[in-house]
Amino acid sequence: MKIRFGLAAFIDEGYSVAVVGSLSRLGSWNPDGSLPLHPVIPPKAKEPSFWTCDVDLFGEGLPDRFQYKFIRRGPAGKGSDEKGEGDIVPQWEWEGCGEGHNRTWEYQQENILGGVHCNPVARWQDKAGETSEFDLTTRFFFYLLDHQLFHYSEILDNVWLGSCPRTAEHITKDMKQVMGTTAVMNFQMDYDLWNNSAECCPPAADVPRYIYDVYRKNGISYVWMPTADMSTEGRIKLLPQAVYVLHGLLRSGHNVYVHCNAGIGRSVAVVCGYLMYVLGWSFRKMQYYVCSRRPVSYIDEVALKAAEKDFATKFGRLPVEY
Amino acid sequence: MKIRFGLAAFIDEGYSVAVVGSLSRLGSWNPDGSLPLHPVIPPKAKEPSFWTCDVDLFGEGLPDRFQYKFIRRGPAGKGSDEKGEGDIVPQWEWEGCGEGHNRTWEYQQENILGGVHCNPVARWQDKAGETSEFDLTTRFFFYLLDHQLFHYSEILDNVWLGSCPRTAEHITKDMKQVMGTTAVMNFQMDYDLWNNSAECCPPAADVPRYIYDVYRKNGISYVWMPTADMSTEGRIKLLPQAVYVLHGLLRSGHNVYVHCNAGIGRSVAVVCGYLMYVLGWSFRKMQYYVCSRRPVSYIDEVALKAAEKDFATKFGRLPVEY
Repeated sequence: MKIRFGLAAFIDEGYSVAVVGSLSRLGSWNPDGSLPLHPVIPPKAKEPSFWTCDVDLFGEGLPDRFQYKFIRRGPAGKGSDEKGEGDIVPQWEWEGCGEGHNRTWEYQQENILGGVHCNPVARWQDKAGETSEFDLTTRFFFYLLDHQLFHYSEILDNVWLGSCPRTAEHITKDMKQVMGTTAVMNFQMDYDLWNNSAECCPPAADVPRYIYDVYRKNGISYVWMPTADMSTEGRIKLLPQAVYVLHGLLRSGHNVYVHCNAGIGRSVAVVCGYLMYVLGWSFRKMQYYVCSRRPVSYIDEVALKAAEKDFATKFGRLPVEY
Repeated sequence: MKIRFGLAAFIDEGYSVAVVGSLSRLGSWNPDGSLPLHPVIPPKAKEPSFWTCDVDLFGEGLPDRFQYKFIRRGPAGKGSDEKGEGDIVPQWEWEGCGEGHNRTWEYQQENILGGVHCNPVARWQDKAGETSEFDLTTRFFFYLLDHQLFHYSEILDNVWLGSCPRTAEHITKDMKQVMGTTAVMNFQMDYDLWNNSAECCPPAADVPRYIYDVYRKNGISYVWMPTADMSTEGRIKLLPQAVYVLHGLLRSGHNVYVHCNAGIGRSVAVVCGYLMYVLGWSFRKMQYYVCSRRPVSYIDEVALKAAEKDFATKFGRLPVEY
């Protein structure tokens, strides 16, 4: 049996990522003995990438627990040292700050997936040891905003996940022609639409109403369930009914594009909820799968686990027809 | 075959209602020959009542079309004449203003229900010939507000429809004990909750959050889908997904209380949509049924018919399991 490490993080192009730890197989805290991770989604500018590696540790008398952390370094000859001198081989950069931010491995039955012990997908820890949803969201959101980008990922054959349309072509070309969208679920608030999708509409148009008409004219079913952003509480309240509606659209044959502002928080929660509550995937399976398709996803474990029971109470066991 | 007349209107206690028209069987416009309607829901102070009568007109060489209108009068000895003198036998009061506001009957296949030609349920026309949703809603809403009333109606064994809870007891007693509610669907906006349900909560509580917790503590599933009021457009956008969620709650065995502020507009639309889109009832069948259970209902025919196709496109044919 193997152990799988996973990291979803902003990693610049040309950089590499590894895991280092207290075990000899993990370099005994020496970066030169660290295990490299491989990019499932290669690094792109301004976007998080997703890295994993599998390592067989169970054969060597694995202890009950051990410690590890992730490290990264730039390409040789392209870095700079602490004095700012260029063209030297850069040093490994460690996540977090010292031992206090070490990660601890423990065997957990719920982490076993296809015979592999899959650790929780990690986010790179900053020097304070934190990974803030706000930081992640803001950085990516402004990147999309500044370039008027429409950024989306195929999660399943019939489920796409991403940012809001910012121009009419994002609907008429990307959705209709690239994705083959027949139904849209949108969780933006009214003001999100005004702030981010006004370029889809003629000047002075009533944006929420105009968007609704654009979809109607393009033969796309449109479900608008306005939900406040950046709130675990809001997601818990939204998840059961939004997942049930998504299930309804899919079972009647739709190809659904699910979005909020940036395709990081609200919309991700609903798609993850569908994989867990309807398709019956474990949290860990869903986490690795979604990160490998859309590394920028903020997967709100607290909300998803809190709402799972509520979904079951509200909608019971769904007919198996997949 | 018979013709059914139906009227849902604010009619004071002691008053009677009749239909008069151009046919001899309808009094040839003479109120003394008018046909009385019978109260399905007897008049109560401050609430609309629902009146119907069936009359066999097909036997007498029924013309393709004829005209009629509704009239009402108070109990003998309790009215006043045009000069304001009391204690006289009051005259019939005609709806609308003159011939211009006559109603026209025509045979329509879609009005046939169980062998009876059921005319559209009428609302009493004011002197301008109008029946305003705003007027209806406002009048009833302030009646509830002034008396802190919780006003609800049983529509099906497992579907109740009404106004918002205004005190904690409306949840713990009326819902839990009287109705046996296990799930609530609420279409109030955030500010509706603050304005109308703050008395459910301790002073200075965050009302939307507190309400959510009250339901959780009472074991009631809570679906909150905020929707703007008094808008056919808003109802068209809401209806498909709200009906689908209601269907989901019912198919998993819930007893659902559906509400907005007063239980007249938004919540009525969703329950009517369920009867039409899921149970397959015709608009006319649904209209007579719902008016006989909750005469104050504002049944938004435009929204319900506009959203019917959207529902079918989004969610397709539902499994028959009832």
